[in-house]
Amino acid sequence: MTEIASAIEIPPFAIAMGDPAGIGPEITAKAWSVREAQGLSPFFVIGEARAIKAVWDGPVTKIESPHEARQVFDRALPCLQMDMNEDVVPGKPTAEGAHCALHALEMGIGLAKSGAAAGLVTAPVGKAQLYSIGFTHPGQTEFIAERCGIARNNAVMMLAGPSLRVVPLTIHIPLADVAQSISIELIRTRAQVTAKGLMRNFGIERPRIAVAGLNPHAGENGNLGREEIDIIAPAIESLRAEGMDISGPFSPDGMFHGPARETYDAALCMYHDQALIPIKTLHFDDGVNMTLGLPIVRTSPDHGTAFGIAGRNMASPGAMIAAIRMADRAAVSRAALPDC
Amino acid sequence: MTEIASAIEIPPFAIAMGDPAGIGPEITAKAWSVREAQGLSPFFVIGEARAIKAVWDGPVTKIESPHEARQVFDRALPCLQMDMNEDVVPGKPTAEGAHCALHALEMGIGLAKSGAAAGLVTAPVGKAQLYSIGFTHPGQTEFIAERCGIARNNAVMMLAGPSLRVVPLTIHIPLADVAQSISIELIRTRAQVTAKGLMRNFGIERPRIAVAGLNPHAGENGNLGREEIDIIAPAIESLRAEGMDISGPFSPDGMFHGPARETYDAALCMYHDQALIPIKTLHFDDGVNMTLGLPIVRTSPDHGTAFGIAGRNMASPGAMIAAIRMADRAAVSRAALPDC
Repeated sequence: MTEIASAIEIPPFAIAMGDPAGIGPEITAKAWSVREAQGLSPFFVIGEARAIKAVWDGPVTKIESPHEARQVFDRALPCLQMDMNEDVVPGKPTAEGAHCALHALEMGIGLAKSGAAAGLVTAPVGKAQLYSIGFTHPGQTEFIAERCGIARNNAVMMLAGPSLRVVPLTIHIPLADVAQSISIELIRTRAQVTAKGLMRNFGIERPRIAVAGLNPHAGENGNLGREEIDIIAPAIESLRAEGMDISGPFSPDGMFHGPARETYDAALCMYHDQALIPIKTLHFDDGVNMTLGLPIVRTSPDHGTAFGIAGRNMASPGAMIAAIRMADRAAVSRAALPDC
Repeated sequence: MTEIASAIEIPPFAIAMGDPAGIGPEITAKAWSVREAQGLSPFFVIGEARAIKAVWDGPVTKIESPHEARQVFDRALPCLQMDMNEDVVPGKPTAEGAHCALHALEMGIGLAKSGAAAGLVTAPVGKAQLYSIGFTHPGQTEFIAERCGIARNNAVMMLAGPSLRVVPLTIHIPLADVAQSISIELIRTRAQVTAKGLMRNFGIERPRIAVAGLNPHAGENGNLGREEIDIIAPAIESLRAEGMDISGPFSPDGMFHGPARETYDAALCMYHDQALIPIKTLHFDDGVNMTLGLPIVRTSPDHGTAFGIAGRNMASPGAMIAAIRMADRAAVSRAALPDC
C-alpha cells in the first residue's frame, strides 16, 4: 500500500542542513513544526540529528533512505544521518561541521539527481569554514552546478519573493568591475536561462523579462554612460528578434515599485545590489534563492548561517518555508512539463 | 488686523510652477483642492495662470505679492503671474515655457531668501528645454545653490519618504565612474551637511546616519573591493571621533528592510541607484526631494515633468502634497532653532 502510494506520489524533498552550528537545524525543525498549517509536502533533512536536538525539543527520527521519509514525516522530522564525532555547539562552527555540511550537500545533490528526492533545499553554510577545509567554489550554487555537469554561466541565481523575482547578471565582484564585466553574450545567456527557468519551475508559458540599465536613468541617451546603447539594448533587440518577451533597458530606480513590478515576471539586473537591494527591501524575511538551469530543483532560503543567533530560538523559518514551497511548486510544474 | 496676523504667522510657501506644459500646474492645483483635508499651510504658485486654467477648472486668483496669498488661499489658488505670450499646450514644451519656468524659479528663490516666502517648492522642469535656452546647471538644485551663494558640494540632495531618507554621495555619473569618485572628504562633507540638515529641517537633535558600502556585502573584508577599507570606514571613523552618531559601512542589500530602517535617520549612499532604488521601491508616489545645506527651505516632488500625461487629469498630487508638508515642517523646525 505504501509502496504503491509512493510510486505515484512526488518523492520527498531533501534539505541539506548546512552548517550544523548555524541556524539551519533550527529553521528546518521549525518548518517541520508548521508542516500542516503551511501545507508543506514531505521532506527530510540530511545532517547530524544531534545538531537539531541541540536547539529543538521536538521529535527527530533517523531514516536510512528517502523513501522512509513519507511514513515518518507525519509524526517526526525525518533525518538522513551524517555522523559527527564531536558535539555540535550552536554558534561555534568547526572544521568537522563544515565537512558534515559538505557531505550533506553532496548527498542531497545525488538524491535529487537520482529522483529519490523531488528537489534539494539547501540551508546556509559557513563559507569561511568551507574554505578552511579546501572547498574552492565561490558558493554552494557553483558546486551544485559542477556536480550536475552544468557550466557556471548556465546555472543562474534567481532571488524570488511574493512580489518580485530578480536575476543578477554579475554577482560577487567589486562595483568598479561591473561595467567591464557585462556583455551582449552574458545578457543573452542569462535571459535565455531565466526565460526557460520561469517556464519550467513556475509554469509561466511566455515569461516577460524586464532588463535594467546599468547607469542612472539608464544612461540618459548616452549622457550618463554608453553601456545601454552599446551592450544592453542590442542584446535585448537580438533576443526580441528571436521571439522572447523581453524589454528595457529601464531606468533602474523606476523598475521596482508596485505597478512596475506587475509588468514583468523577472527583472534581469546588471549587478548584485541592483538586484539584491529591491528584493531584500521588499522580501527580507521570505526571499528564496532558486538556481535556474539545473537538471534538479534547487532552492535555498536567502540568508546566511546567522551564527550570532544560533541556538537562541530567535531564527525565523519564514524563508525556509518559502524555499520548501517554491521547490514543491517547481517540482509539480516540471512534472507537468516532461519535455522541458 | 491682517497685517498683524501675518507678522506673527509663518509666511506662505512659494511653488515654482516648473515647465508650464508639464504636470506641475495640475499637481499644484490638485494640492490646493485638498488643502483643508490635508491641513496644508497657505501657498501660492509662481507661473502663468493660463497654464493652470488649461488643465483645471478650479478658481485661480492672480496676486501682486506674496502677502496677498494668505487672504486668497481659502477661496482660490493664488498665482504670482509670469506672463507668457504664447498659449500653453499641455504635453508640448516650448522655449518660452522654459523661460517662464526659469523666471518662476528665480523669483521663488528671491522670495524665499527675502523671507517673503517661508520656503520654496519646485515643480518639475524640462531639462532638455532649459538646456536649449542656455541653462548650464545640471539641474534646479545646483542653480538654487549658486543663487544662495552655496558651493555645489555643500548643497546636498536628500530623498525622503515616510519610512526612509537617503542621500546619494555621487549622482548623475556613469556607474563605471562611481568607485573613483568617492573620497573621504566627500563622505565627510555630505555626512556633515546631512546631520545638520536633519537637525535644522526635521528637528532631530542627534541624527543617526548609516553609511552604505560600495561593493556587494560591503566588500567582504576586502575580498570584493577595498573602498570600504580604504575610504568609507576611515571617513566614518573620523566623523565618529568628532562626535557624530554615524555607523557603517553596511552591506547595501541589508540596509533597507523595515527593522533596518528604524536604526537610522538617513542612509548615506555611494551612488544614485543605491539611494534611488530603495526610496522609489518604497515611496514611488510620495517621495520628496529636499535640498540640505541651503539658507532657504527647498523641497520638490521626486518625479519629472511627465509630458506624456500632462493635461489628461492623470497626475497624482501625492508627491507635491508631501513636498509642501515637508517644507512646512522644515520651516517650523527652523523657526524653533533660530541659531542653526
